[in-house]
Order: sequence, then structure tokens, then C-alpha cells
Amino acid sequence: MTSASGSFDFTPLLAAGLPAAAVKWTGAPRYNFVGGNNDTAQIPVAHLLEATTAVLSREGATLATYGLNSGPQGYRPLRDFLVGKLKRDAGITCTADEVLITSGSLQGLDLVNGLLLSPGDTVLIEQDCYQGSINRLVRRGVTIVGISVDADGMRTDAVASALADLKSNGIRPKYIYTVPTVQNPTATIMTEQRRRELLKLADDYGVPIFEDDCYADLIWSGERPPALYAMSTTANVIHIGSFSKSVAPALRVGYIVAPWAVLSRILPLKTDAGSGALEQMVLAEFCAAHFHDHVPKLRRGLRVKLEALMEALAEQFGTAAEFDDPPGGIFLWVKLPDSVDTMKLYQAAAAAGIAINPGVEWSVNAAHSRSRLRLCFASPTVQEIREGVAALAEICRREFGVPSRSANVERAAK
Amino acid sequence: MTSASGSFDFTPLLAAGLPAAAVKWTGAPRYNFVGGNNDTAQIPVAHLLEATTAVLSREGATLATYGLNSGPQGYRPLRDFLVGKLKRDAGITCTADEVLITSGSLQGLDLVNGLLLSPGDTVLIEQDCYQGSINRLVRRGVTIVGISVDADGMRTDAVASALADLKSNGIRPKYIYTVPTVQNPTATIMTEQRRRELLKLADDYGVPIFEDDCYADLIWSGERPPALYAMSTTANVIHIGSFSKSVAPALRVGYIVAPWAVLSRILPLKTDAGSGALEQMVLAEFCAAHFHDHVPKLRRGLRVKLEALMEALAEQFGTAAEFDDPPGGIFLWVKLPDSVDTMKLYQAAAAAGIAINPGVEWSVNAAHSRSRLRLCFASPTVQEIREGVAALAEICRREFGVPSRSANVERAAK
Repeated sequence: MTSASGSFDFTPLLAAGLPAAAVKWTGAPRYNFVGGNNDTAQIPVAHLLEATTAVLSREGATLATYGLNSGPQGYRPLRDFLVGKLKRDAGITCTADEVLITSGSLQGLDLVNGLLLSPGDTVLIEQDCYQGSINRLVRRGVTIVGISVDADGMRTDAVASALADLKSNGIRPKYIYTVPTVQNPTATIMTEQRRRELLKLADDYGVPIFEDDCYADLIWSGERPPALYAMSTTANVIHIGSFSKSVAPALRVGYIVAPWAVLSRILPLKTDAGSGALEQMVLAEFCAAHFHDHVPKLRRGLRVKLEALMEALAEQFGTAAEFDDPPGGIFLWVKLPDSVDTMKLYQAAAAAGIAINPGVEWSVNAAHSRSRLRLCFASPTVQEIREGVAALAEICRREFGVPSRSANVERAAK
Repeated sequence: MTSASGSFDFTPLLAAGLPAAAVKWTGAPRYNFVGGNNDTAQIPVAHLLEATTAVLSREGATLATYGLNSGPQGYRPLRDFLVGKLKRDAGITCTADEVLITSGSLQGLDLVNGLLLSPGDTVLIEQDCYQGSINRLVRRGVTIVGISVDADGMRTDAVASALADLKSNGIRPKYIYTVPTVQNPTATIMTEQRRRELLKLADDYGVPIFEDDCYADLIWSGERPPALYAMSTTANVIHIGSFSKSVAPALRVGYIVAPWAVLSRILPLKTDAGSGALEQMVLAEFCAAHFHDHVPKLRRGLRVKLEALMEALAEQFGTAAEFDDPPGGIFLWVKLPDSVDTMKLYQAAAAAGIAINPGVEWSVNAAHSRSRLRLCFASPTVQEIREGVAALAEICRREFGVPSRSANVERAAK
């Protein structure tokens, strides 16, 4: 039962359908335009340290107990902060009993999927969509119906016809998943009118909405429409959010908001004996004092980086790179000429130490996304943004002949 | 599609086979003899705070990046600490590439199960076993073969006949799961001889061993046999461990040790964008300086509580409570007279504010475990242990007529 090398061969015992083996991590790429990483210069280290000192000195001994003194839904002061924050910022009225702290909003995705999905089920999502959400659905054997997005957000006419089609085939989708507020990757914000239409459709067809609001804190103007959760009159929305984008991704703290009737079915699926308590404690202490000062400052810094990225793209790619100036967030969704296959660009760029997200990995519509890419701008410095975009343009020109002009120098395609 | 109350009815959309709804948490029980909670007085708050200050001051800005600067396997200094610790304490030779930091050892269970198990598979486990491990297997639709345990640990004669039986039926189990070092709940330590026999059987039948070592730091003598992982000559063991018992459970930091060929298949299943980074950083900093002083001190404190528990049981239950003096850990596995159904005792005790683990929830052999219970002693104070055991004895006497004598006062059963 052992292999030629004398070591045990696990291969015949592996579960079916596992993802491919990981390759060993060899360090971050030189120019890193992927991932929800944030700006290192904007981590509020001093205030986090102050918060840690306060909370550990006061109640560090509670780390002896799973769930601290707050039970399985998460540290109570953090849930209390969220109740206030969600009311102020998103118009959501909820109680601490309707909030479950999760290990990042990724665990929120897993828990809601675990609540509702079985293989063969159908869901509606925005056709260009967060890769982690798409992958989770694929792994669960769920049929995905992609809905196109325009400047006003998910197109409700497309939702209406998809729901009607599915109904005529006897299919009731399990949910409509949307990132309505700074959509990933298009960065669109769904208008209030669209939100009303979507909620009406959800009600008419008996399909709940799964609202992923993890970027909503990062709107430049600081003004956002109310959450779908807040606008619903029938409690047909499950809402998730995160501190990854507003404070620090490595902390891995997110949350689910749902009526107790729903949350009480989600909670038993969270079999991890609680999310990291120290991080919840530190966040609660930090946020109560500093969240509302920290976030506008963070946004201003992100806006500066976005402007550097847009300028670099204009300079290096010229009209070959099309994009809208996003109203917030940490990424830009860029359209290159149809001749560019961004999956190939991604591979060539990776070989040169430049990480980008190829469109087909962030979409369920390969034809639509083939020449698109996502560029995250929060983590690299302005200097790295400029250098990385210049290097990317050079690779793109070498591989695809576009941009033909870059940095105002016309070049012949090889 | 909405219920009479006007709110959306999720019930028809729920996935099949969900666990029952949670009830709202209403606070910890007055006498809490359940859960892996630790001694609040022994949380090294000052040293944790010192560690936090050092590590956040030095590298707090790395919280901006998923995985810090260490990639997806977890904070490198913590993995480096583990490489040294596992060598010193468990005899394990491994590299940091063979260690994956997890969100508690519970995530380790989930990941290894995800790697190997499909519905209908078969595994061998100790018949009295951690509830969380049993529940995970049941939820995955796996057939469990329980193996009895004696003072030397999992009985290898029973393993041999189970493996032979299964083989004659064409079944190759996916793994043999064992907590060999302070088994949960029996607290037995598998002898080296048994470990050799178990490894031989595993090799002969081509069945890997899944070693859960999360209590191994808590042996009173400080001396433990080498881990199965260390003794294996064919790399047929996957090893998991945790800082929950040795430092603080609420931190939720555990680990998997496996050859890279195996770990590289586990890593893609960890789709949480990393475990909590602050906790990994603080633990690494704390452990490098204090782990080997902290743990012996913790053990001495736990031993004091165990002695209080054993004395209280002797005083209150007399000969009605049978147990072995465990060589380490945080729990006592107690046998009451056959007339006592500990599931009923558990319910009556819960109503009186006393939490215990009924035997049938910690075993796959209901007949064997019906009159047994698990009492965790790390969390309650010595005073609470005394009061709680006295109250439990009173309830047991009321419900089952035993102990007939308690606190040296003979009482008639009602």
C-alpha cells in the first residue's frame, strides 16, 4: 500500500472532485494587483494596539472560555457596535440576536450556502462576480444563472425574465446573490429604484435575496443607498458584511445579519467553536472609538491610489483600456480590446511578477469577460502601481499588439 | 410566498438534513462541567499583552495583507515555533512547509474529512470519542466502526479484527481516527507498544491514521510517548493539534501536520483566506518566549482542580462514581451505576444549572456509555466544583436513587 518511494500513497483514498493540488507559496508577486489586500500604510496600528491593551487588561481572562462571555454568536460588544453601525450606515434595524460574527464574510458565504443549497439547485448572481462566490457554487454542484449588470446595478429586467423562465420550467431558485453596493468587480452601486424592483421580484417569485455588502464602507462620497435588508418589508434578505475592507483583511472578521428564524438554522452549521475571540475583542474596542474616523481617512487614501491607477492606465494603455471611474472600493474592472485574452495576459504577466485577475475567473460569462481584467489598487504603492501598469502594458503589447502606443511612444507590434 | 406574519418563509428552501434550530443563548450555566474551556486564572494575560505590543509594533501593518507575509499556510514564525515544539515534545520531524495553521483543530477535522471522506465511506474511531468528531462523521454520512479502549489506549486486537472483517467485505476504511495521547473522554495514553501495533495494522491494511493530539501538552508528568506521526516509517499519519488547551481556547488556533503531498491537497480546501492573523502573531510571539514555562504551570493548576473533582465525587457519590485518576487533560470520564441514564441526568441537571456531557453524546456505543458522563474541570473554580458535584449528586439521588449516601449522610431514595 506504499508507493515506490516507501511512503504511503493517499491518492486512492482521496474524496472525489477535490481541487488541484496547491503549489508551494514562494512569496508575493512584485506587482500585486489581486486580492482584497489593503493599504499597509493605513492599518491603524497605534489604535489597534491601544484597543488591545484596553480590552486584554480588562477582560483577557475571558479567553479561557469558548465564545468569551457572549455565547456562540460572537463577542457581544462587537455585535452591539454592528447594530448601531448598520442602523446609521445601511438603514438596517436589527438586534444583537440577529447578528452572527463569522470568520470573514467567506464563512458567511459558506454558512448561507450550507443553509440553502444542495447539488442541482439553481441561484441567480451578477454575471461578473466575486471569484470566491462563483467557486463555492461550482463546488456545490449548483446551477448558476448569470444576470448582466449596468451602471444602475444588476439588471432587474434580466432578473425578471430569468425568474419567469425558471418558473416555467418548474424551478424555484434558492436565492438571488448580489453585491449591490460597490459590486465586485464592476464597482457599480445598485440604485434605490433597482433595489425596490429586485425586492418586488424576489417577493413575487418567493426567492430570497442574499446581500453581500462587504465593500459598502468604501464609497468615496460616504453616502450609500439603504441596504436591501433595510428596504425589505418581508424579511426576505440575508445580509453579510466584513471588517476586512474597512479595517484589516488579515483579521478575518465578518458577520451575518438575518432574522432569528433564519439565523437559528445557520448557527448550528457554525461548528468551529466560535471565531477568533481576540480579534473580535480588539475590533469591538477599536471600532467603538475610531471606526467612523478611520474609514473616511482610509477612503481618501484609496481614492489617491485609484487615481494613480487610472492615470497610469490612460498613460500606458491609452484608449485600449476602457473603464468607469468607480464610486468606491478597491478594484477597477478594465476592458481591453477584443483581441486580448486576459487569461493569456494573466499567465504572461505572472511570469513577469505581475499578478492580475483575468476576467473569466470573475465572471460566469466567458465571452463577455474574456478581454476584461480586475486590478486591485489598495495594496501596491503609487510607485508600484505606475511601474506595474507600465510593465503590464509592455507585456500586453508584446503578446497581443495592444496598446500600440504606450507612454506616448508609438511602438510596432512584434 | 410569505407566512401569515407577513415575513418570508425560508422553510421550503432549506437544504435537506439540517441540524435542529439553535435556541437563544441565555448565559453560561452556574456549574459548567462541559466544553474545552480553560482556567480563567491561568490565562497569561500579561504575557499575551506583552507579546501583542511587541508584534503589533513591529509588524502590525502586515495585517493589510491576507496571510501576512507568510502565504496561505499561516504565519511563518508560528509554524517555525511548531516545528521546534513538535520535535522536542512529540518527536516529530517536519518542516514549516508541512504545517498548516487552522482555525482551531476543529477546522483541522473538517479539512482532513474533506480530503478523504465521501458519504458511505467507513472509518474506525475509539468508541468513546469526542462528540465533535462523531457529529462531523454522522453529518457526512460516514459509517463509523467504534473500537474499544482500555488502559493502554485503543485496542489493537479490536482494530485488527475490524480491519479484517471490513476487508472480507471489500471495504477499505478511509482512516483510523485516534486521540492517542490523553484520549477524549477516557484520558488514556496509548502505549508505545500499542502505537507500533496500530501503525503496523495501518500499513498492512493500507489505511492511514488520523492522529488528533490536542491534549498532549497537558500530561501531569510532562512526559509523553512519541506521536504516531513521529513513529510512522511510511508517512501514513496526518497529525492535528491545537493551542486551545495549552494557551486559550477562544483564540481558535490549531494546526495540521502532513507530508507536502497530502498537505498540498488539503490547502485548496481551506477557502477562508487564512486563519485569524492577529491571534497567530500573538501566539507566535508569546510561545517563543513563554510556552515552555506556561504549560507546566497550567498543568499544576489543572491537577489541583482534578483532585478537587475526584475528592468531591468520592465524598458525594462514594462508590457509585467509578473513574480512573487521569494522567492529564481537562476531563474525567465517570461511570455511574447501570441504573443511571446519564441522558436523563443531563436534562435534570441542566434544569438546575449544572452542565455535564452525557455518555451517549461522547460515544458510538450507547449501551456502553449510557451510565457514563464526562466532567470537565478546568473552567469551574474549586468551590464551584465542590458545590456543583454536591448538587449533581443530589439530583442523581432524586432521579435514580443513587448515590444512596452522599456527603456521608444516608438518605432514602424518594
